[in-house]
Amino acid sequence: MTQTTEQPLLEIRDQIDAIDAQIQQLISQRARLAKEVARIKTNGGQVDAVFYRPEREAQVLRRVIERNDGSLPAEDMARLFREIMSACLALEQPLRIAYLGPEGSYSHAAVLKQFGSFVHPYAVSSIEDVFKAVERKEANYGVVPVENSTEGVVSATQNCLIDTPLQVCGELDLPIHHCLLSNAGSLDKVRKVVAHAQALAQCRTWLQNNLPHAELEAVESNARAAQLAQQNPQWAAIASEQAAQIYTLRVLEKHIEDNRQNTTKFWVMGHEATEPSGEDKTALIMTVPNKSGALLHALEPFAEQGISMTRIISRPAQHKTWDYLFFIDVLGHQKDSKVRDTLEAVAERAAWFKLLGSYPISPLK
Amino acid sequence: MTQTTEQPLLEIRDQIDAIDAQIQQLISQRARLAKEVARIKTNGGQVDAVFYRPEREAQVLRRVIERNDGSLPAEDMARLFREIMSACLALEQPLRIAYLGPEGSYSHAAVLKQFGSFVHPYAVSSIEDVFKAVERKEANYGVVPVENSTEGVVSATQNCLIDTPLQVCGELDLPIHHCLLSNAGSLDKVRKVVAHAQALAQCRTWLQNNLPHAELEAVESNARAAQLAQQNPQWAAIASEQAAQIYTLRVLEKHIEDNRQNTTKFWVMGHEATEPSGEDKTALIMTVPNKSGALLHALEPFAEQGISMTRIISRPAQHKTWDYLFFIDVLGHQKDSKVRDTLEAVAERAAWFKLLGSYPISPLK
Repeated sequence: MTQTTEQPLLEIRDQIDAIDAQIQQLISQRARLAKEVARIKTNGGQVDAVFYRPEREAQVLRRVIERNDGSLPAEDMARLFREIMSACLALEQPLRIAYLGPEGSYSHAAVLKQFGSFVHPYAVSSIEDVFKAVERKEANYGVVPVENSTEGVVSATQNCLIDTPLQVCGELDLPIHHCLLSNAGSLDKVRKVVAHAQALAQCRTWLQNNLPHAELEAVESNARAAQLAQQNPQWAAIASEQAAQIYTLRVLEKHIEDNRQNTTKFWVMGHEATEPSGEDKTALIMTVPNKSGALLHALEPFAEQGISMTRIISRPAQHKTWDYLFFIDVLGHQKDSKVRDTLEAVAERAAWFKLLGSYPISPLK
Repeated sequence: MTQTTEQPLLEIRDQIDAIDAQIQQLISQRARLAKEVARIKTNGGQVDAVFYRPEREAQVLRRVIERNDGSLPAEDMARLFREIMSACLALEQPLRIAYLGPEGSYSHAAVLKQFGSFVHPYAVSSIEDVFKAVERKEANYGVVPVENSTEGVVSATQNCLIDTPLQVCGELDLPIHHCLLSNAGSLDKVRKVVAHAQALAQCRTWLQNNLPHAELEAVESNARAAQLAQQNPQWAAIASEQAAQIYTLRVLEKHIEDNRQNTTKFWVMGHEATEPSGEDKTALIMTVPNKSGALLHALEPFAEQGISMTRIISRPAQHKTWDYLFFIDVLGHQKDSKVRDTLEAVAERAAWFKLLGSYPISPLK
């Protein structure tokens, strides 16, 4: 390093050191206040005091993003605050979060994105077990995939939602990027591409342009495809970057999906209802009487009250008395009087109606 | 929540919000200074400017730990600063760090511990490939296990160190905890315990006290043991908590090792020498002439100059002209004149001598 660059660098380092000392003092203050919150909550006579407040965390992160001046990308700044909150929350209550393993799965990434790294992720082997772990209080919360651009609606989650006593208390979206994974060394050495049929479809244009001569074969899952590519060096799999790490394959190409808006939606399941955060959604399941026009009739109150449905998904029910179950998300919190009244009106017109919970719209991209 | 607890909680939240705004402002300032550092370094005419400075990071973390007031555990506070530095460094230069995959391995945990989560971990399939990836500049740095309480010295790493042009530029220790993993449901249902022989030995007392009737069987690795336990529900494996996640086994018991000081030492390999941080080590390899007393004679200068050896490990050499290679770590930095002179004196007495590098003693537990 030259003399002329060394001096200004040393001065900047001194400035950074002074800033670090201030940041540390403030984080320590924040930690002391978090302990004070825990003390008040437990002194208030609540044996079952709730320390994780999704609505509060959403509000904090929204403010961080709003006031961010761009020195760091807003997303990175939010991640740092996500960690600071995670460390402070661990002082109040160490949280155990159940998810569908193995480690490195998208569900695991979802746990870290939603809760930060100071919680204890708890891998279980099925979505049913995520619900069970929370229901039996082996874990404080569970994170489950709800809808997946690659594999569509996650029916195992839907099945559990019908019967669970748990509430939806948070949501998050995880961007899913398809990669071409192979140990072939380079694109021109790839003879065959294996992947889940939907992944092949989602990368059709890219495959036509870049691997016009490769054979395409659909297999049962992208994880299976990665496993096959590991065994056959002239094959490539379409799967996540995480899969490359798990199956020690090289990433030949990233982001090969034709549609770059590919995400998976996850829900946080817990025992407690979430308070309003200012920007919320409410999830419900219902069935309607088996006669024509029944669905539109049941949904009318939403339209009349100007309450937006952000999602409606139907699926065949397993009972005889009705044909379809409808999974519906609307904007607004059930504690908002207009939303509450409208939900009551809809429930009256439904054959069966179950409120899954209200939760903050995720501030994290 | 009762009326009497609600008011103080709201006041505390307002205080936390004010603190968060200040923290954010300071982190933004820090990020702007990091960009300024990058600008000066690149303007200084250095095309190959070095942005990651292990000695500087060690100094920052040491200060964080020293001035910590205990509101947060020092370890957690250091982790938060580790992340803040990682986010700021990503602005200067996004780093790719090669490690021995798969994701979830101890090496992966070592990457995150040393570099924070804003770098790109790059899984490769062997320790040789970690060295190669850095040598070919596919990755900026590599993290390799050097010594492992469970499996002893990592000879694949030793082999690479002999020939590599890379330098050791950092170290870290990762605590290794053995867990009993099984899907048996409870301890009394475990019929057989499988693990690497050293892991079985390390947990002998615990096994005698808690599973006196279980059969013990040594297998080639703890990962293999976990795989077997996954296939046989009445078996248990001794392995890491990470393995439980990878193989979807339940953790029946944590920390079953008789000696709680079980750690693995990792080194960071890179192209650049690390400057002195104030508390450093220097690593070297040497061979001595094949005659009695040659080793003691070669090491004498260390004793005479009061330079402590923190580690000396011998291994048979593959060449004929000498019998043993010695891997030695001493306290101090090679730029310190006393250390430099002493290393020269030792080198003169050695048959072959290679300096691997000087690096900061890790401030992270």
